[in-house]
Amino acid sequence: MRDLKQVYLDNNATTALAPEVVDEMLPFLREHYGNPSSTYSFGSRVRDVLEKVRSCVAASINALPEEIIFTSCGTESDNTAILSALEAYPERRHIITTVVEHPAVLNVCRKMEDKGYTVTYLKVDSNGRLDMESFAGDLSCGTAIVSIMYANNETGILFPMEELGRMIESRNVSGGKILFHTDAVQALGKVPVDVQRLKLDMLSLSGHKLHAPKGVGALYVRKGTPFYPLLIGGHQENGRRSGTENTASIAGLGKACELATKALKEEAAYLGKLRDKLETALLSTCPGAIVNGRTSERLPNTSSISFEHIDGEAILMFLDSNGIYAASGSACSSGSGKPSHVLEAMTVPASAIHGSIRFSLSRYNDSSDIERLIEVLPGIIKKLREISPLSTTCGH
Amino acid sequence: MRDLKQVYLDNNATTALAPEVVDEMLPFLREHYGNPSSTYSFGSRVRDVLEKVRSCVAASINALPEEIIFTSCGTESDNTAILSALEAYPERRHIITTVVEHPAVLNVCRKMEDKGYTVTYLKVDSNGRLDMESFAGDLSCGTAIVSIMYANNETGILFPMEELGRMIESRNVSGGKILFHTDAVQALGKVPVDVQRLKLDMLSLSGHKLHAPKGVGALYVRKGTPFYPLLIGGHQENGRRSGTENTASIAGLGKACELATKALKEEAAYLGKLRDKLETALLSTCPGAIVNGRTSERLPNTSSISFEHIDGEAILMFLDSNGIYAASGSACSSGSGKPSHVLEAMTVPASAIHGSIRFSLSRYNDSSDIERLIEVLPGIIKKLREISPLSTTCGH
Repeated sequence: MRDLKQVYLDNNATTALAPEVVDEMLPFLREHYGNPSSTYSFGSRVRDVLEKVRSCVAASINALPEEIIFTSCGTESDNTAILSALEAYPERRHIITTVVEHPAVLNVCRKMEDKGYTVTYLKVDSNGRLDMESFAGDLSCGTAIVSIMYANNETGILFPMEELGRMIESRNVSGGKILFHTDAVQALGKVPVDVQRLKLDMLSLSGHKLHAPKGVGALYVRKGTPFYPLLIGGHQENGRRSGTENTASIAGLGKACELATKALKEEAAYLGKLRDKLETALLSTCPGAIVNGRTSERLPNTSSISFEHIDGEAILMFLDSNGIYAASGSACSSGSGKPSHVLEAMTVPASAIHGSIRFSLSRYNDSSDIERLIEVLPGIIKKLREISPLSTTCGH
Repeated sequence: MRDLKQVYLDNNATTALAPEVVDEMLPFLREHYGNPSSTYSFGSRVRDVLEKVRSCVAASINALPEEIIFTSCGTESDNTAILSALEAYPERRHIITTVVEHPAVLNVCRKMEDKGYTVTYLKVDSNGRLDMESFAGDLSCGTAIVSIMYANNETGILFPMEELGRMIESRNVSGGKILFHTDAVQALGKVPVDVQRLKLDMLSLSGHKLHAPKGVGALYVRKGTPFYPLLIGGHQENGRRSGTENTASIAGLGKACELATKALKEEAAYLGKLRDKLETALLSTCPGAIVNGRTSERLPNTSSISFEHIDGEAILMFLDSNGIYAASGSACSSGSGKPSHVLEAMTVPASAIHGSIRFSLSRYNDSSDIERLIEVLPGIIKKLREISPLSTTCGH
């Protein structure tokens, strides 16, 4: 390895584990390996810890401990929430979601379309904002679930969850409330998440976006909400998610939620300042750069910037060779080569989508990371513009 | 904590992580936290490791690397295998399994019965052996999948997988082979597992039964087998299991498979000797004790022993207070208080089922553990017999 300062600016793809999280996990990887389902003390002590962690995760979103189900990832949480709602309301054949969701929601909805369901994909405007007027009309007595992400993984744009929650709740439907689910994977730890205020019935979390390990997540299910498990077997998690509990990672998730909740306000302010520094500098040094959704409410840590007429993958490669890591789209689809469905939905021109880079920060970034980026990126952009056959239209 | 020697004899519930496995995991929990889906070097290096691990897991069952899908647990693997087969053959409405399967298979089958499928639950005799004659007649052109465990988690009894594989393969069915799946969660590392020899189409593995962490498993799917993913989203695992890969635990699983494969022969012999020592001693010191399925082919590490007319939970409690940990049923259902469905299927009398204890060993047990058990258990049995209202019929 070269002796380069590494600058990790892809925290919406995954995060470094907090050292406190690793410390919390180690005892479960070393001595406390008991099975929490066991009746003897060596197992039940682990079960007791799980229950403490459950309280901790619950507290971070203002839920009750018994409303938290541990899962293996955000995708499992999302899949479970949607499929459970459809099983709970077999007579309802309609789902509402948005065009800019994570594939873990979008691809389940598409599969359900193949099975005869109708799916409304709410559109966004060029600022990434939802069309709230059309939404009210889309809610019907045939709607089983509304699944709308809290914060977009590519742009950081926040949706008006409180207003959505109110509208869904006020829509009286015989046979049970239209369920409101959110993928809050990107939101937790960056903005306040309160399931009561947002009137949510289900909410998905993921550990590895929050400085906990990969391979653990949670699903909040409001008490009284009809629920059908996705994984079935040995009745763990009170029959709601079978499979031996991933104790070490669950312990890590609990610590990560605790850290995120404690530091939320200061961290959000800290990240917002760093992000603003990054955007101000790049906009002034890279002519033609555009921050996508800049005027919308956004996560403090995320910046999606388009450098028109340049290949984003080329930018990433040059950043990589300088020890700087960022993304050209959402992590999950970045290997696919397809243009971002989120930016397409915001009608960003194709030439700008292909030159879009997502920078996403965490508590482990500091000013020197931003300075390093600003030192390197404008030169890369300039060089790529010079060699790009497309750049002649660009006026440089 | 009291200063007692701890004797862990519940390795079929879960195992201690091998120190080598923890060492393999730590770099992914500390420095190599990149997302394997990322295109930059910090992510792609992790992806390269995943592919090496895949080869390692594949080699342990004589499969190809591309036939291995990483999952979150044995339950997910089992659920996925069965539901995939039913999706692959929508016109076939029949499943074959056994009455003694793990709940991760049984409960999916029961759910499918509710949805209109027909399920044949193959019976076992009093030695835990399958009725192979009836099996041939049960296979029909409407059978989508046969899911039969390799080794039973409660008794360790092995099913004749090779013969089953041959019979399934020779049953010509138009529209595609009847799929043969096995839950090999308890078998791997204790007996040879070869997907070619056993003519398997799918096979489930679990890390935490194998000295890898909880929260990771794998599903083998033979090349060319029609497959439908359970978790859908960002297309990880070649579109076959979405969700960001649990890199640290997958690395641990790979190391565990490597260790298990290398030491298989010696370990099986070592465990068999310990188990025989345990059984011989208990049978001679605890009058009326019976080893369930003793004459059948069994895992070398598992011993299910019935102490008639005594409450198994009481035995476990006294063992626990002596620092000895064992199980009264399968871990997953041990909290339920229901009598073991496996021993019921073997027509073990109810009075003996309630007094049944499963001892399951691992490479980390030694003679001194068995000696400690023999020192303690006969006294517990004697004491419980004396105070039991049932024991008067017992002739002691």
